Parts: sequence; structure tokens; C-alpha cells
Amino acid sequence: MQRKIEVCLTPALLDLYAIEESIVVVIDILRATSSMVYGIDNGAEAIIPVAQVDDCLNFSGMGYLLAAERNGEVVEGYDFGNSPFSYTKEKVAGKTIVLTTTNGTKALHLASARAFKVVIGSFLNLEVLCTWLKAQDKNVLLLCAGWKDQFNLEDTLFAGAVVHQLKANFDHFDDSSVAAEDLYVLAKEDLRQYIAKSSHSHRLAALNIEEDVKFCLQLNLCKSIPVLEGERLVLLK
Amino acid sequence: MQRKIEVCLTPALLDLYAIEESIVVVIDILRATSSMVYGIDNGAEAIIPVAQVDDCLNFSGMGYLLAAERNGEVVEGYDFGNSPFSYTKEKVAGKTIVLTTTNGTKALHLASARAFKVVIGSFLNLEVLCTWLKAQDKNVLLLCAGWKDQFNLEDTLFAGAVVHQLKANFDHFDDSSVAAEDLYVLAKEDLRQYIAKSSHSHRLAALNIEEDVKFCLQLNLCKSIPVLEGERLVLLK
Repeated sequence: MQRKIEVCLTPALLDLYAIEESIVVVIDILRATSSMVYGIDNGAEAIIPVAQVDDCLNFSGMGYLLAAERNGEVVEGYDFGNSPFSYTKEKVAGKTIVLTTTNGTKALHLASARAFKVVIGSFLNLEVLCTWLKAQDKNVLLLCAGWKDQFNLEDTLFAGAVVHQLKANFDHFDDSSVAAEDLYVLAKEDLRQYIAKSSHSHRLAALNIEEDVKFCLQLNLCKSIPVLEGERLVLLK
Repeated sequence: MQRKIEVCLTPALLDLYAIEESIVVVIDILRATSSMVYGIDNGAEAIIPVAQVDDCLNFSGMGYLLAAERNGEVVEGYDFGNSPFSYTKEKVAGKTIVLTTTNGTKALHLASARAFKVVIGSFLNLEVLCTWLKAQDKNVLLLCAGWKDQFNLEDTLFAGAVVHQLKANFDHFDDSSVAAEDLYVLAKEDLRQYIAKSSHSHRLAALNIEEDVKFCLQLNLCKSIPVLEGERLVLLK
């Protein structure tokens, strides 16, 4: 089979892609998919992504942890937002987390409506994700969550990192995968410094989450791939 | 005034941008905006961009040249398509051309509905365009026409070339302008070779227009900036 890799730079462009036979990797590096990978790797039983903050409330009183973030901040009254430091073994092992975020959840829901399979990517699980993708007989679409439907650098760099690792095993690449890979190769020696050029980075700096950013740019800290099963993200086995 | 540069990577994302106070530069390097620049530079009185091939027919019998292209080929029965070699002085001086193209016309129409002003960019008029943009007290949005609403390399590279020249005069940049500039700097020593990685390039090679591609990648062959006035592109004076 001839296999293709595509990079969808924002969820607003997803309709342009035929993904019925593709594995879609959802990418929201700062910070939703990094926290999802870290949480599942730390033994969370499941993570349930929901679109609206209010949707979280439907799950209150059920023993779930409720996580809600809007514009980079924890919503008042919730257990936590999407800082990866909230997703440690002590906090999440054996638990189910209901999570809503600005961009990541939206991308997940759009993809899950049509894709063959939806998995979660971040620098934390880059290696294990690429090894698994190589072994599947499927096309791959890397879906950048972006920021409010706009292009962002950090999600694109991660998409480029995946293209860089997979390309020897694939036959066709779209222009955005070529661009993403070249940007990754340019940035990879110091991802943090490169991302400092990003508008998102300035916004996050204002929110005082520099430690989160450093954490999310670590490579291969985790060995887990979250996969969407129905409405829940669980460990891919 | 604090000035910003933004790069809209495809017309499908244009709704995300407030452009009422921006000069929008429409970019469709292969080949619509290159041919528009070359045609106006060669003395065409006006170029009227229209959305549909059939719309061209409304202008037949009026002494206009009719140009129609779909999927990279001249539509049967029309005077020419959008190869720049059709826009020489001999053919277009003093004439009005009615033009429809796959992507460029669509981008133009979307922009003209809201922008402060709409001008045409290509490598052929890079220098004169940048000099003029620097002198205006306005924000700049670089609108890549893309390919059927998808990202493409050649339009993004040109957007990056403009960012590269303008950035000392501007204060704010979005993530896509950072990425576009870095890709341009990476590619600028040999634009043709870089664009050979593009999916569009393969498609154009199949159409046997290699000479067109080389032509469109020449820098500063022209001293003209086409500007949209009403429904017509004319020489900016």
C-alpha cells in the first residue's frame, strides 16, 4: 500500500481532508495533549474530553476528577486545568478525568467524527508514537489543534518531528508536512528558544507557566499512547 | 502606531482575521498573481478577476481579452489562461483582461469584501511592493491563495520574503509569519529547488509548465503594484 502523511495546520481546515482511512494524531502541545499523555502514562484509567466547561458539570458527583481550562487558566471551582503537573501518578492513578480545554478537545471531537482511529501525540511520547505509526498499514494525518483555529508554532513543530521520523516509511507528503518537517529540523536543537518566538508563548509567559512549557518540550518521557475509544481516551494496548 | 504583520496561510482561514484596517496582499505565485503583476507592468489597462469560468462569458464581445484556467489548464475557447508568457507587452498593452483562476480570484474576492485595500504580490514585484508597504501607516495581511483551500509552499515562501523585508518596520507578528519567514530564509538560495518538494510542483510539472515556474520565481522583474479598485485591478500610482 502507498501510504501518505498529511499535516492539517488547524482544525478549521480538517474538512478538506479525507480521513476515513487515516489514523489521526491530535496535537495540542501547550498543554492539553501533553497532559493527556502524561496522565495516561501515570495510570489514569481514562480521560474524557468534553467541549464546554458546563459539560464537565454533568460528571460531578461521580468520583471523577474535573479539569477545566479556558484561555490558559483553571476555571474556578474545578479540580485542575491542564498543567501537566496536575497529572502526576499520585493525583491520577486509577482515576477518570473529565477535561475541557480551549483547542485540544475541539480538535479531538472533529477528528473522532470521521477518522479511522484517533490517538494523542506530544513530545512526551514522540518515539513510542512513531514506532507504532510505522507499524500500522494506514495513512497518517497530524492534526494541529492550533489556537482558536489559527496556526501555531509548537503544534506544527511536533507534527514536523513525526514527519521527520516517519518519512522513510511513507510515499506521499503534502506541502504542510514538508514545511512542518523543515521547521522542526530548524528548531530541534533548542525547541524552547524557537517557541519563544511564538505569540502563544508570550501569552503563556503572562500566565506564569514557564515550567509547564519546559515540561511539555521534553522528549520521550512517556511510553504510552492515549487512544480514543468512544468518548474516552484510554491506554492503547 | 503599533503595526502588525500577519500571514493567512489559506483563504479558508481569512474569516479569523480582522482586516478592516489592513492592507491585504493577495499571493498566488503559480501563477495567477505573477501573471497579474506582469500584465499590469506590461501596460494592461486593467485586469478583472472573476470567480467562475462562465462569468468570463459576460464580458465577451466587449473587446476584452478573456483568460480562463481551471486545474492549471487553459479552458477551451478562451484567449489564454494564466501563464505569464501570455501577458507580454505585445499582447496586453492597453487591453483589459478578464481572468478567472482556481485559487487567486477566490482569495481576491474574499479579501476585497472587508479589507482596507487589496494589492497583488509576486516575486516579480517583491521589492517595489515592500518599499510601498513600509511607507503606509497600516497593518499588513499576506493572504496565500493556496491550492483548493489547502496550504502551499510557494505562496508561503513569498509571504515569508515580505515578512523578511518588512519586519524591522513592524511590531507584531503572528506564528504563521514567523514560520513563513523561516521557511523563506531556508529556501531563498534556491527557490526552485525548494519548491520542487511541493505537491503543487509535481502537478505543474505534469502540465508541462516548467518554464512558467522559473519565470514566476524571478525577483524584481517588475516595478508595478496592481491594486484592486472596485472590480478591477489597475496600476497603483
